[in-house]
Amino acid sequence: MAVKGTSGHRQRQAEATKLEVARVARALFAEHGYVATTISRISAEADIPVQTIYSAFGSKAKILDKITELWMAEAETTARAAAYLEEADPARQLRLLAELNRRQMQAGSDVVAIYQEAAASDPQMADTLRNVLAAREREVRRLIEAVAPRLRPELTVDSALDVTLALTLPEVFHLLVAERGWSHRRYETWLAASLVGQLLRD
Amino acid sequence: MAVKGTSGHRQRQAEATKLEVARVARALFAEHGYVATTISRISAEADIPVQTIYSAFGSKAKILDKITELWMAEAETTARAAAYLEEADPARQLRLLAELNRRQMQAGSDVVAIYQEAAASDPQMADTLRNVLAAREREVRRLIEAVAPRLRPELTVDSALDVTLALTLPEVFHLLVAERGWSHRRYETWLAASLVGQLLRD
Repeated sequence: MAVKGTSGHRQRQAEATKLEVARVARALFAEHGYVATTISRISAEADIPVQTIYSAFGSKAKILDKITELWMAEAETTARAAAYLEEADPARQLRLLAELNRRQMQAGSDVVAIYQEAAASDPQMADTLRNVLAAREREVRRLIEAVAPRLRPELTVDSALDVTLALTLPEVFHLLVAERGWSHRRYETWLAASLVGQLLRD
Repeated sequence: MAVKGTSGHRQRQAEATKLEVARVARALFAEHGYVATTISRISAEADIPVQTIYSAFGSKAKILDKITELWMAEAETTARAAAYLEEADPARQLRLLAELNRRQMQAGSDVVAIYQEAAASDPQMADTLRNVLAAREREVRRLIEAVAPRLRPELTVDSALDVTLALTLPEVFHLLVAERGWSHRRYETWLAASLVGQLLRD
């Protein structure tokens, strides 16, 4: 029991270290860029030895994976997507999709910007971003397929997916919320009404 | 008369030089970035002496101004905006707005990318981009004001302008046309229907 307790304590310590590294790295990536931020800079800022960071993560890319995982957890992505698939009414489903997107943008527009900046100058990060976007596309496709019987007759699942990906772009969120001063609630209401209006037959 | 003829010839030669510099610079800016492209690189690629380029433009920023002017001329921006303001039917006006935006994107999505890339690393270019976007916003506001009497009762000119700026974002065009393979015509039809559906009362 003592050994197990110690192990649990160590695991909690290790997780606390990872969370702290992720928190500090996220701020540095957002301010100076992912490519320009070195592990030793993260080490200095977090006051955690470089070797501890390497042991915990192995690479800078894994730190960004952790940041992404924490972001998705904060946005409650998995629970919200499950709620969507359990919902029977298509209009309510699309409202849940709008809510999920608003949560993701609200919780992580800085992470989106980190990925975009990194992908512009680092081919490996461009690959990573392509994978992230492909996973997101599969997720959104699953949600659109769930409302397929109620799509407007002129729409296929593919074209409904295209429109959904366009309306949920981070750049649309950024323009409306950061530049034009919309509240998160107003953005979500607009997105929900746009999706329902464009995708569902009356 | 001889002097005037010579002067006309020289002016045509000077304009031809400017067009050639703009054409070569546009390709170099798009491929290597505005910031990384030097005047001497443009000179070498265009086979036009550096001094001639400086005499014609004065600075790299002025070359980008010329590229922008040529882009707007190709998109027939002025004529299309005038046609819009002469049109009496609000739905047809919004269709003309969609057509104008499609023309601008089709003729110059590379120029948009040049501005965005330059603004990300050059504070002066960030200022220039802000001015370009502010001028575009004033133009779009004028077009929205022209349909104000037919806006949905819950919309102000400001909120209709916000929605229009969001739907006409270059990133939306890029996603639908470059990434999802929509034709320019399909994009324009979608944009027109979206603007009419979101902005005008039935």
